[in-house]
Amino acid sequence: MAYFEGIDKINYEGPESKNPLAFKYYNPEEVVMGKTMKEQCRFAMSYWHTLTYMGGDPFGVGTMFRPWDNQATAMDIAKERVHVAFEFMEKMQIPFFCFHDRDIAPEGKDLAETFANLDEIVVVIKEEMKRTGIKCLWGTTNAFGNPRFVHGAGTSCNATVFAYAAAQIKKAMEITKDLGGENYVFWGGREGYETLLNTDTGLELDNLARLMRMAVEYAKEIGFTGQFLIEPKPKEPTKHQYDFDTATVLAFLRKYDLQDYFKMNIEANHATLAQHTFQHELNQCRINGVLGSVDANQGDPMLGWDTDQFPTNVYDTTLAMYEILLAGGLTKGGLNFDSKVRRGSFEESDLFYSYIAGMDTFARGLKVAAKLIEDKVFINFIENRYASYKEGIGKDIVEGKVGFKELEAYALNNGITPNVSGRQELLESILNQYIMETK
Amino acid sequence: MAYFEGIDKINYEGPESKNPLAFKYYNPEEVVMGKTMKEQCRFAMSYWHTLTYMGGDPFGVGTMFRPWDNQATAMDIAKERVHVAFEFMEKMQIPFFCFHDRDIAPEGKDLAETFANLDEIVVVIKEEMKRTGIKCLWGTTNAFGNPRFVHGAGTSCNATVFAYAAAQIKKAMEITKDLGGENYVFWGGREGYETLLNTDTGLELDNLARLMRMAVEYAKEIGFTGQFLIEPKPKEPTKHQYDFDTATVLAFLRKYDLQDYFKMNIEANHATLAQHTFQHELNQCRINGVLGSVDANQGDPMLGWDTDQFPTNVYDTTLAMYEILLAGGLTKGGLNFDSKVRRGSFEESDLFYSYIAGMDTFARGLKVAAKLIEDKVFINFIENRYASYKEGIGKDIVEGKVGFKELEAYALNNGITPNVSGRQELLESILNQYIMETK
Amino acid sequence: MAYFEGIDKINYEGPESKNPLAFKYYNPEEVVMGKTMKEQCRFAMSYWHTLTYMGGDPFGVGTMFRPWDNQATAMDIAKERVHVAFEFMEKMQIPFFCFHDRDIAPEGKDLAETFANLDEIVVVIKEEMKRTGIKCLWGTTNAFGNPRFVHGAGTSCNATVFAYAAAQIKKAMEITKDLGGENYVFWGGREGYETLLNTDTGLELDNLARLMRMAVEYAKEIGFTGQFLIEPKPKEPTKHQYDFDTATVLAFLRKYDLQDYFKMNIEANHATLAQHTFQHELNQCRINGVLGSVDANQGDPMLGWDTDQFPTNVYDTTLAMYEILLAGGLTKGGLNFDSKVRRGSFEESDLFYSYIAGMDTFARGLKVAAKLIEDKVFINFIENRYASYKEGIGKDIVEGKVGFKELEAYALNNGITPNVSGRQELLESILNQYIMETK
Amino acid sequence: MAYFEGIDKINYEGPESKNPLAFKYYNPEEVVMGKTMKEQCRFAMSYWHTLTYMGGDPFGVGTMFRPWDNQATAMDIAKERVHVAFEFMEKMQIPFFCFHDRDIAPEGKDLAETFANLDEIVVVIKEEMKRTGIKCLWGTTNAFGNPRFVHGAGTSCNATVFAYAAAQIKKAMEITKDLGGENYVFWGGREGYETLLNTDTGLELDNLARLMRMAVEYAKEIGFTGQFLIEPKPKEPTKHQYDFDTATVLAFLRKYDLQDYFKMNIEANHATLAQHTFQHELNQCRINGVLGSVDANQGDPMLGWDTDQFPTNVYDTTLAMYEILLAGGLTKGGLNFDSKVRRGSFEESDLFYSYIAGMDTFARGLKVAAKLIEDKVFINFIENRYASYKEGIGKDIVEGKVGFKELEAYALNNGITPNVSGRQELLESILNQYIMETK
Repeated sequence: MAYFEGIDKINYEGPESKNPLAFKYYNPEEVVMGKTMKEQCRFAMSYWHTLTYMGGDPFGVGTMFRPWDNQATAMDIAKERVHVAFEFMEKMQIPFFCFHDRDIAPEGKDLAETFANLDEIVVVIKEEMKRTGIKCLWGTTNAFGNPRFVHGAGTSCNATVFAYAAAQIKKAMEITKDLGGENYVFWGGREGYETLLNTDTGLELDNLARLMRMAVEYAKEIGFTGQFLIEPKPKEPTKHQYDFDTATVLAFLRKYDLQDYFKMNIEANHATLAQHTFQHELNQCRINGVLGSVDANQGDPMLGWDTDQFPTNVYDTTLAMYEILLAGGLTKGGLNFDSKVRRGSFEESDLFYSYIAGMDTFARGLKVAAKLIEDKVFINFIENRYASYKEGIGKDIVEGKVGFKELEAYALNNGITPNVSGRQELLESILNQYIMETK
Repeated sequence: MAYFEGIDKINYEGPESKNPLAFKYYNPEEVVMGKTMKEQCRFAMSYWHTLTYMGGDPFGVGTMFRPWDNQATAMDIAKERVHVAFEFMEKMQIPFFCFHDRDIAPEGKDLAETFANLDEIVVVIKEEMKRTGIKCLWGTTNAFGNPRFVHGAGTSCNATVFAYAAAQIKKAMEITKDLGGENYVFWGGREGYETLLNTDTGLELDNLARLMRMAVEYAKEIGFTGQFLIEPKPKEPTKHQYDFDTATVLAFLRKYDLQDYFKMNIEANHATLAQHTFQHELNQCRINGVLGSVDANQGDPMLGWDTDQFPTNVYDTTLAMYEILLAGGLTKGGLNFDSKVRRGSFEESDLFYSYIAGMDTFARGLKVAAKLIEDKVFINFIENRYASYKEGIGKDIVEGKVGFKELEAYALNNGITPNVSGRQELLESILNQYIMETK
Repeated sequence: MAYFEGIDKINYEGPESKNPLAFKYYNPEEVVMGKTMKEQCRFAMSYWHTLTYMGGDPFGVGTMFRPWDNQATAMDIAKERVHVAFEFMEKMQIPFFCFHDRDIAPEGKDLAETFANLDEIVVVIKEEMKRTGIKCLWGTTNAFGNPRFVHGAGTSCNATVFAYAAAQIKKAMEITKDLGGENYVFWGGREGYETLLNTDTGLELDNLARLMRMAVEYAKEIGFTGQFLIEPKPKEPTKHQYDFDTATVLAFLRKYDLQDYFKMNIEANHATLAQHTFQHELNQCRINGVLGSVDANQGDPMLGWDTDQFPTNVYDTTLAMYEILLAGGLTKGGLNFDSKVRRGSFEESDLFYSYIAGMDTFARGLKVAAKLIEDKVFINFIENRYASYKEGIGKDIVEGKVGFKELEAYALNNGITPNVSGRQELLESILNQYIMETK
Repeated sequence: MAYFEGIDKINYEGPESKNPLAFKYYNPEEVVMGKTMKEQCRFAMSYWHTLTYMGGDPFGVGTMFRPWDNQATAMDIAKERVHVAFEFMEKMQIPFFCFHDRDIAPEGKDLAETFANLDEIVVVIKEEMKRTGIKCLWGTTNAFGNPRFVHGAGTSCNATVFAYAAAQIKKAMEITKDLGGENYVFWGGREGYETLLNTDTGLELDNLARLMRMAVEYAKEIGFTGQFLIEPKPKEPTKHQYDFDTATVLAFLRKYDLQDYFKMNIEANHATLAQHTFQHELNQCRINGVLGSVDANQGDPMLGWDTDQFPTNVYDTTLAMYEILLAGGLTKGGLNFDSKVRRGSFEESDLFYSYIAGMDTFARGLKVAAKLIEDKVFINFIENRYASYKEGIGKDIVEGKVGFKELEAYALNNGITPNVSGRQELLESILNQYIMETK
């Protein structure tokens, strides 16, 4: 049965449309830089924020109106949510979904029953996938919500919790493989510390590396060829999360010789919590060859927690898509809306308005970014700016032909060539023009 | 001639003393954990903040009363400052100093004259070092203050500026070696970006690695055996500094295979600007074996810029010394007061009050930290907390004997051993007791 | 029946004690500045964090071990909690408690039943109060947790919600009066906005003033003579809370001519979220004569949300008690631990360890602050610093005898008297000495 | 003589123009909501950032190329800058300027000479004003840059400094009047504290009120009818500035009965440093009837200091102009670019690019805001959202006809009318559409 009966499939109506239940910028079949928007954006629905977020916050309980949750048992709710999820994705024209194990099925009385619950729901999901053609972008494990993970999962001080987490990840990887998931994500929600007074960070990080190594080996064993992704976040829920940002994760991977097996899942709001722009984190992924996938949302720069708002800032989506396009596109990754409706947006229709907001904003960003690249606006400026490394002493530096002695001789004899303005304000003006005027 | 005539040598008078010009906690010859306080702390005077900081800020000009600067020429000022510096260190019982090339001598009309200026001042410094026995902890290059470095030094878009910076570093390394400096520090004040719109981060970071490689090679060539240190800072003056924090620098070093040649110079205020505690950064250095030296100061958690205040928070110095002692002490490094008197503390005596404040606060921290280690307060708690990794399934995990399948079997059969409280509040209480009661 | 059977009454054992279940600094009957510590501190237990906080956070469910909650009905739980609360306060020697209506009794099927539930529990509380002599410091209303308050209570866009909130406050005031509560607190958890795009801030603030006015009038009507307090907080749960900080609340009160009826309930963590120190907010209360009461806790300066940690920083408690003593003490107010055990401190004993931590830290702060005042350490420094306003032109300024013309004449003729150093670092050193050495 | 010879007058060429030295959105004579853009925007040049900012920052000296400063004496430089300023404003079509006393003329050997210097330059400015028709938007005093103000001006602990500041303000008010300035601004750059340990905040704020009162009286005396404005800023240069934000200033004005004489000068970057949006501060001014003028710039949400960037974010300018238009426009105020070119934008042309960026961004914001108001997009939504206060119990609340008892009766009998979604995401989508599609 359908829950969103009053709401038709969301279609593209163009930027002049006043229909709130229509796309103004996301035109799935429109070709941008050689691919359709659908292929470029690879939008995904987050199962958790869309199906299981009830609107609770630290100061109040849930507010969401979700009639489909009115079922007899937890498993019945879980099954109904599958249908709702696929109905929603169909209507929204969203080609992918992402999930944690605990989003799709409730825990049972023990781990065996929990696994059985998962298996039962996976059958329903596969039916819906077959019916609709919607695919799994990635799966992951929720090893942070249950009290057993109070001190972490792979970094728990309790070895039996480590074992439990490993078992859970194993199962989630199997399910992800079974669903054809193109990636598997690690977000270490409790992998960090509350206070250094009681924490052995050295052992905890060694153990985290052990867990990652086991995952790599098990993937080989079962032939899971999806991409492994780590999702950085600097803090929250723990005071300090080990996967602080892209650089921190790279330092970790390189220390434990894991760098060939993992890429990044970059979340906008996690970037800003680490005091980086979204663009910065994507840029760091690009230049290190580790751009995996994107959790599309936005934070509030005035707030210090993970607000997971639907992305509606065109500057951010433009500069994000700019980095993504320069990196060669999303390939196996996608734009997963790890975004939740505001607590005050508790009606069913708000799910539609919010996804439309996010998809339109990224679609707009995609078009502007593509135009910036096609016109080589910043590319040419940058190429010219660094031209001194293409010849003479600059070329020698880049090619490793000179050392301190040669450079000292050069400097003593030549001084410096005058610097040229960085033109930041002009470039920002041009960006504005592209954002406003790109057709 | 002496400028601080009214001020005698600062001596230890103990915690009950009401004499503002005496140490209450820093007793240089007192033995703490097998070494004298002097050996444990290895205090250093920062040449820049002590001799060249005039009290200017973005909204006002200098306020400092520095009668010794009343000299005819820039070189005369530079020479007089050497005498003042050593008089100050002698009176303060500070055994080391740290300097940038530009702190000690003014730039000349060209690079050759600048080098000559440096050579002339180095002679004076060496005389004073010989006279007093005071040593050089580290030298460094100021490749950020001059307009030529407006777009960076090693990461400048202008190759001739890169060459100039290399020449400057070469000379500063030579001087540091000549002065017997035990370390050489790299702080990349303009190595970062203002906007990604005009920046090729990939090339800039490659170039930075090239510069570091050249430094390593030149050190070998001239037989400079001091330790190379990189000082992380997340931002300011640039919007984003490449050496954001310890983890970011480690990711960089490991990428370019430079990890064997560099350790960290951790500054407290730079840690807090990166949203880390001072202890966190030192802890990360410890577990990665890269603790080099420390820039001792503190920021204001309510302010978003580098305030470089003298450290007066005993919690911070206790937890810092705790990590340092666990790491085996400062070895070649030291506690360099990269701290400046407040703009309103413009009298000469404030230099003394401020260094006393900083030295006493670290001395107190040292004693408390040593007692915490001797009593194994946190050590035992932590050892017990992670005991599950010493036997059974935990031992198997650590020793690499099990993978996902074995752990799944374990979890299905055994579930988890109940977790135990982390006891954060109790540990914080105990820390308070040690801070207040350590004799 | 007793739940904390293994735990005896917590007694003062002095700073050398190694007993974790003893006070090291809080000696209730010790006299400090003319009153006992018990009278000076007026400690209160927060009903919510102590009895109803289960350890949930945005990323995980509750972790707390609370065996007394194992009861058949919500009302049975509520009653058992009363007994636990008073047993806890007795053992902890805490003389006061604070509560929200929703902490003590569950909502019923309608408002009438909710009121009846409250009445039933109040009877139990009064019995326990009589039995133990423990008093009510203040009561308040939870008009933020229920979904009906999703858009605010007194500032809701829905007038019927305003009416509902008024009814709820009326009842809570009556209960507070009935329990002999010395204060009634207003914390507007949802009184603020999420986005200005949908908000009429002018009307909302007018309505908030109307609600406050009604409260004032109703208090008169029923003869409630307790103090009315507003608790500032800048944000969370809403993006922007109307009662941002003390100054904002004062601006509001003065605009609506309500300034004679309200004082402040200052929470440490709310101060820091507003980028103020705890001391700053208390200082602003002092100089405006509006210091009412204190929510004793602390935040983490590296985290951007309300962590409500137990206060363990002696600097903060010293400077807080310093302002409180200068303001004439807490009078009707108290130190209410609006603090919650960390999620990882889930055992019953952690409640004791945490309250001991908080009480000891404030007790230590009290003693240090008292000594600072008795010795007039800062008082004399400040008096001297502003001495120029006691005579001559300064006295004329203060007494309103001069205007711009006279002052211009003075400045043209006299220039300025030289400034004197502010001595910040020396003062911080002295503060350290007092913190460490006060007996 | 002209310095910007290569640069013609900047003209409007429309959004498609690729000419970097043309306006794309600012069309001075285009009518928007009944006035020309020129009248609506009332753009002003800031004398300080444009003429006297040399590009220095705490880590480096000036970088700006300013050939006109190559003059023999400080007074010659000052005079040449007047000509450059007016040439620049003419070419940029900027109708107003704003200045501090110290921007336009150097200090002399004593206050009398300083006044004489000012008088000499004012003559030159008046000539240029007459020649060009450019007007003075506001004047102010720099009572923060000179070392004499190290401890504040009106809040200095030194009464002779208070007198000096008063003399300086008197003169600046006279000059502002002489130049026909429409406003006089107070920004208390050092009116705040560094540490509470040495500060008598009560006396300092009383003194600040005394200074403001004297200013009001002197204005009456000399017949200065310009508007008095206070510019809030939360911190920097001092740790805590007394004029933290609009609410704090209102609390101050209302306390000292000064509320009838002062409005606000809102700076975007000061708002964000206080953790408010620019829109929030303007909204607070609007609902309190104290919107005076605007310092147009922007900060970087990732940086914790006053970056004073040229405003290029259309969201911010749209929402700012939205509040301004709702408040009835700028009236006597204006949009003063308290913005400085980036340190790396050191060429003369960058001044033009940057002002174009700022003016175009505000012009775009103006047009979008006007359309939002004309279409009543948010106005109707809000009116509908609060409709419950127009009738029934809501109307009774607003009209003061009911108290707690009546509202309790209402709530017991009626419960609440269901809440309706706040629709934040939909409203953000619509805002995007208006920003992108407004013609």
